[in-house]
Amino acid sequence: MEFYPQSLVSLIKHLSKLPGIGEKTAARLALHILRSSDEDAKALSRNILEVKEKIRFCSKCFGLCETDPCKICLNMSRDHTMLCVVEQPNDLVALEKSGAFKGLYHVLHGALSPMSGIGPDALRIRELIERIKTDEIKEVALATNTNVEGEATASYLAQVLKGYPVRITRIATGVPVGGDLKYLDEITLRRAMERRESI
Amino acid sequence: MEFYPQSLVSLIKHLSKLPGIGEKTAARLALHILRSSDEDAKALSRNILEVKEKIRFCSKCFGLCETDPCKICLNMSRDHTMLCVVEQPNDLVALEKSGAFKGLYHVLHGALSPMSGIGPDALRIRELIERIKTDEIKEVALATNTNVEGEATASYLAQVLKGYPVRITRIATGVPVGGDLKYLDEITLRRAMERRESI
Repeated sequence: MEFYPQSLVSLIKHLSKLPGIGEKTAARLALHILRSSDEDAKALSRNILEVKEKIRFCSKCFGLCETDPCKICLNMSRDHTMLCVVEQPNDLVALEKSGAFKGLYHVLHGALSPMSGIGPDALRIRELIERIKTDEIKEVALATNTNVEGEATASYLAQVLKGYPVRITRIATGVPVGGDLKYLDEITLRRAMERRESI
Repeated sequence: MEFYPQSLVSLIKHLSKLPGIGEKTAARLALHILRSSDEDAKALSRNILEVKEKIRFCSKCFGLCETDPCKICLNMSRDHTMLCVVEQPNDLVALEKSGAFKGLYHVLHGALSPMSGIGPDALRIRELIERIKTDEIKEVALATNTNVEGEATASYLAQVLKGYPVRITRIATGVPVGGDLKYLDEITLRRAMERRESI
């Protein structure tokens, strides 16, 4: 890397801080940026600053937005009695893309992970309880990931929310549509079999 | 993607123009940038502009530099009678890292590829001949890649340079050091066997 000019070394160093980008990939990206048009490079540079300047967390659901509250929270055609709890903004986006949910969201910004020192206070759980207390919520659908941390978070939330007059649900686990049984792990298969349904 | 705020969508769009970065990776990178510190984001943004502003091609070897001629061309402790011809600036860097070459370089900025419409005029071949004519070059080591385009370029250059009083060499092909024979292609193995040496 030290054989590149100083400014290129600096760009490579910063690009390799991005997740999944090693030094070699960073060098490839940096050389691409160097070769790209002035407009493209300027747009990329400006967009990085804009994202940091403009994007806020919605004060209601903690999803990403440029105007607070976010468009989803303001959308009166959505079901304001349903909350879907997700770990991260991209989980929200994945669900929105699927079109499966027409209620409101609540983004925790993480999952419980005692190993990494992430306890309930590090997540937006207090705010979730506040929403359930003050808004007219009828159902809370827990859509945290189905890995260890996500399951632990869902169990914890189910426990914490037990005292409130809301229906608490969890997204179903099973074989993904289009999935190939031979590539699936045993736990998923076992659960899918246990929860088999009459057709 | 349309479910993210506008400025984030724009950043994702620009990041996915980078080589090997699909839309999902771009979204992951964009969210990382959003979560990173203000300093990191600003430094990345500034570095992108700086690279475009500061980095030039050396007017002698066409390698990357911030001051023209580049440090390698100015380094009088290097052998100025030897030229190593490479396709791209990162090939030059790879050779520099290896420490195997102490002469000067000439970067073609590509390889001959009739399929992609890249002919001799698109490369820095005219400038290479000019250097051979005016500078005191004794050897030209052709270190273009060993794929079809690189080999074609090396053959073409060997042909074109035949009339000049320089020794023309080509980097050796064979089994990479630390290589595992069973993973190597047949052509490499055949060549390595043909060029076997007494020990």
